[in-house]
Order: sequence, then C-alpha cells, then structure tokens
Amino acid sequence: MPDRPILPAIAPLDTGAMAAAQERWASRAKPPGSLGQLEDLAVQLAGITGTCPPPVITRPAIAVFAGDHGVVADGASAWPSDITGLMVRAMAGEVAAINTFAATVGADVHLVDVGVASDLGGLPNVRHRKVRAGTASLAHGPAMSVGEAGAALAVGLDVAAELIAGGADCLVAGDMGIGNTTPSAALIGRFAGAMADTVTGTGAGLPADRLDAKTAIVADAIERAGQIDDPLAVLAEIGGLEIAAMAGLYLGAAAAAVPFIVDGVIAAAAALTADALVPGTAARAVAGHQSTEPAAAVALKHLGLEPLLDLRLRLGEGTGACLAIPLLQASARALRDMADLPEG
Amino acid sequence: MPDRPILPAIAPLDTGAMAAAQERWASRAKPPGSLGQLEDLAVQLAGITGTCPPPVITRPAIAVFAGDHGVVADGASAWPSDITGLMVRAMAGEVAAINTFAATVGADVHLVDVGVASDLGGLPNVRHRKVRAGTASLAHGPAMSVGEAGAALAVGLDVAAELIAGGADCLVAGDMGIGNTTPSAALIGRFAGAMADTVTGTGAGLPADRLDAKTAIVADAIERAGQIDDPLAVLAEIGGLEIAAMAGLYLGAAAAAVPFIVDGVIAAAAALTADALVPGTAARAVAGHQSTEPAAAVALKHLGLEPLLDLRLRLGEGTGACLAIPLLQASARALRDMADLPEG
Repeated sequence: MPDRPILPAIAPLDTGAMAAAQERWASRAKPPGSLGQLEDLAVQLAGITGTCPPPVITRPAIAVFAGDHGVVADGASAWPSDITGLMVRAMAGEVAAINTFAATVGADVHLVDVGVASDLGGLPNVRHRKVRAGTASLAHGPAMSVGEAGAALAVGLDVAAELIAGGADCLVAGDMGIGNTTPSAALIGRFAGAMADTVTGTGAGLPADRLDAKTAIVADAIERAGQIDDPLAVLAEIGGLEIAAMAGLYLGAAAAAVPFIVDGVIAAAAALTADALVPGTAARAVAGHQSTEPAAAVALKHLGLEPLLDLRLRLGEGTGACLAIPLLQASARALRDMADLPEG
Repeated sequence: MPDRPILPAIAPLDTGAMAAAQERWASRAKPPGSLGQLEDLAVQLAGITGTCPPPVITRPAIAVFAGDHGVVADGASAWPSDITGLMVRAMAGEVAAINTFAATVGADVHLVDVGVASDLGGLPNVRHRKVRAGTASLAHGPAMSVGEAGAALAVGLDVAAELIAGGADCLVAGDMGIGNTTPSAALIGRFAGAMADTVTGTGAGLPADRLDAKTAIVADAIERAGQIDDPLAVLAEIGGLEIAAMAGLYLGAAAAAVPFIVDGVIAAAAALTADALVPGTAARAVAGHQSTEPAAAVALKHLGLEPLLDLRLRLGEGTGACLAIPLLQASARALRDMADLPEG
C-alpha cells in the first residue's frame, strides 16, 4: 500500500491579472457588463493562468475515471454494477455520450480504470490503473482504506501531469460508476455541513420508493464521517475510487495553473474533497453545469461557484463540463480580440 | 416602393421524424431522459429537418442586420445612433463580440445594412441593402411605411435564400441598432398581448430614471398597434428595419426547413413578428439564450420556446444564439452516434 500522496501547493488566484482583465473589459466596445457571466469567467481565467488576456483554450482534455461501489449491493442504484464496465467499453469504442460531445467541441477523451469491479484487462484506449475492484459498501464500514484512497488520488494527479505535459490547456474530469451519487451525496453532506435529506436524490433513475433507504445510508455515512477530521480519511470512509481520482486531477490542474471544469454532482463532490485537501483549489474551478441532483447545488454554493449551463443533464461522464468548453474559449477570445471603445 | 413581399409557406414539423427521434433516444445507452433539454432539442431538429437522426450542423451562418431608430431622439437609449454605424464597422473589421464568438464555434458572419442612419457606402464585407436611413420615431407616428417594412422583410428573405444556397445549414439573425429594445418591447407587447410595464426594460444601460418615459412610449405604441390587424402594418407602425429583416430571415429559414436560433429580445420580437406573419414559424425556432430584458421571457413563453443558455448576456449581435450552436451540434451528434443499450 502506498504512503499518503504528496499534495501539491496551490497558489491563490493572480489578483493583478484579474484586475487587468476587469480593466480590459471596461474598455471594450460594448455596454459595460453586457457579456454577463462570460466577463466574470474571463477574469477568473486570467486569475488562474496569471495572464491577461488569458490564453484561448486550444487543447481541452477530458479524463473519465471509472470505479464501482459496494453500496450498489445495498440497493443504492437502479442499475447493476456491470453497467460500469460496459459503459467504459462503449467509451473506448467512442459511442458513449461523452465521445459525441467531445468530438463536437474538439476535446480528447482519456479513459482511466481506477476501480471497475469487472475485468477490463487488455481493453485498448484505457489507462489501466485499478486500485481495487470496486469499493466495499460504505453502508457497512469504510469504503476503502486510507492507503487506497491516496493511491486513487495519486492516479488523478498522475493523469493531470501527463495530460498537461502532453499540451492540454484545460482539464475536465468525467465519472463512470454505477452507485456513485451515494458517496457523492455523503461527501457533500460531510464537507458542506448539509443534512442527508438535502443532498440525497434519485440519481440515474432510482424509484422514489427507494429514496428513503438511500437517504438513511447517506445519513449514517455523514454521521460516521463527522467523527473524522482528516479529509483523506473521510474520502476513504465514505467516498469512491473514481471520486478520489477526480479530486486528484483537480489538484494537479490547479497546481499547474491550468483551468479545470467541474461537471455534475460526482464532480462537485470531488471538487469539494479537493478543496478540503488543499484549500484554494476550488477558486481555480469553473462550474460547467448545474446537476439535477440536489447535492450539486449545495456543493457549488459552498464552493462559491456558479454553473454556466443548466440543461437538465444527469448523465455524468463529464458531459456537462464538456459542453461548457466553448464558453471558456469564447470569453477569453472576446477579451483578447474585441476592439477598444470607439473614440468619441 | 415595392409591393408586399410574398410570404413563403411553412410546413408543420415532421411528426414522423420526431417520433422516430424519441424512439431512438429511448434505446440509447444512457438512463432515460438523462440528456435533458438536449433530447428535446434533437427531437425538434428531427421535426424541422424531417430526418432522424437529424444532420449535424456543419456550416452555421450568422447574419447581423443593422438599422437605426428615430425613437433615440426621444431619449429611448443611453447611446447615440452613431454607435450603430461604428459597430458595423467594428464587425466588418472582425473585432466585435460576435466575430470572436463566431470564430469560436466555426460560424461565418454576414453583415447587412438594412437601415443604418450613417453612410456605410463602400464599407467592405457588408451587404448594402439600406431600405431607408433609419426609421422615423415611433413615438410620434409610424416608424416606416408598410412598403418599407415589406422591403426590409424581403432583404431578410433574400439573405436567408442566399446563405442556404451557399450551404448554410443553420441560421442565426443578429441585430445592431441603437434604440431597438423600444420597438422590440412594443412588438412583443402587441403580439403577445402584454402590458408596457411588463415588457419594457433598461436595455443596454438606460438610467433607471428614464425608464418611465421609455415605458410611456412603449405603452402608446402598443395602444396604437392594437388598432391594426395586419402584422406587416404593425411592424411598420412600431417596428424597426433590422427587426423586419430578421423576421424575414426566420421565414426564409423555416420555409427551407433549416433550423434557426433566436438570440435575445430583438430576435424574440422578430420571431414573434414572423410567427404572426406566417403561423407555425416559431415551431421551427430554437431559443438560444434567455435575455435579461423582461420582454424576451414574455415573447419566448408566448411562442412556447425554452432558451438553452442563460449567461446574462445583453449585447445582441447574435451573441447568445451563436454560443448555442455547439449544443445543437452535440444533441444531433449524440442521437446519431451513441450506441444502443447494451444487451442485457
């Protein structure tokens, strides 16, 4: 079992670049504030990258982390765990939703098996980094050991470093993991200080009559995790392998001053976890999409993030974040290329 | 003065293609409904194009129509009319917001002077189709003659035909016209049956203490137009030249079964006008962005359209609609390329 991963240092946003961006917006040829949320976005990108105008993203990369969840055996999902591996196969064959969205916006998709229960050995186009074959059920004890949580986090850090070294200038973490709204709700409840009934939803189609049982599992998890101070140990107790890896990817992107876009509720749980591990990480996050799961709004509010899109997507895979990529590009390009106010 | 333009026939949506799209979504590898608004969007695109799956847009085109408004002399805008021509020059130089957004999403921008007050003669990259050098003030009588409204509408029909003949497979109409939230509010009030105070806003930065005077102008315009049955005559009485041309572009796109994306409040007024001229036009419209102007929500609700984006943009030029183009592409591509549900 590896030791705890070394967490990177993450600098505060560059306030000088942000002030320069604000000034630059004020002198563009348009009514003040008329580009709305995209003005704030370009200012944030200036703060993240330390550059004004911030560079226009040209090589966005999406890493989809897949893992399974023991809690599925306790009825937390409408779907069987087998679907996780089948969907990774679909993504490797480029016929999942995320592949079609990534092709639309010109992003690469990278697949990472960090904890799928079924054997994906030999499947091409996948990074095989399985830490364990799915978590234990968080309904009955720790989902994994602290060492395993750290190893999964390190996978995300590694993937971030690899993608950035390869030229990626914007990262998205997607998730594939049947049952993963349960650990996500639990993590958000724990880190945002919210009650189980405000963070638990029906995920990808749980029948309404099973929501109470899911909420009870989340409530118990939040209570147990409330006894734990160390964020990595919280992640081990009530989290998931793909969620840990996503948090690692965010930490890696933030440390490298590369913008990253948070997707739905699983990604929001990972961002909250990353920010608990290294405070200041979330200031470098862009929220791509408002998830329909109630926990997502709780997490984003806690992190001070306002999502760009609200299309009622509830699929994960990084789909909502992926669709926000052109908005980042448009905001930076407008700040860079728009004329000054006409003289007069 | 030309005669009334011949309005095209517009077919109802192809319900067979829409049903096929719904069935196709139901068998894709994802939880039912999990792509939210994008599922409805692809179904609508199937209905518009009569094809399932609908073709993925590859050549979107944006036509920005520019015109001036006599009502500016009555204090309806925070900006002088001169800005209209200056902004067309900025667009011709590819340094306006719409140029940077269009470059981001791979759309062409086409500029049309249909009624700018200042002389743009000789400016390259502009279609010079000026019907008159700005409208008369709708605060004191008809903004233009019925013949002029028809001529401006015909410019939009011509541009749609030209762009579609050139291969465009999705059209956006943008607007540039200082003062044009006033005629837009009036048209929306008249065609949606709404009161002046529910449709009048501060536009591109009108000081709050001038809102009452603007609302009074809109109220008078709605009342006068309420005496007129003929939609083209309504457009002449209280509309604008660029709004007429935008309505013409929508009619041309709808008649050719090419999807078009409505931008902000000016575009919403044009869409409402087009639907009044040829009922059924709006069923072929996609709403790109929720404008901050109150009239936009009134118009979209009246037309049964739900906007895809809400980024608090309030610039016009087609900016909000332009940013929605990747969403149309993603929805159609997902429906086309996603795998069937895994056998199970």
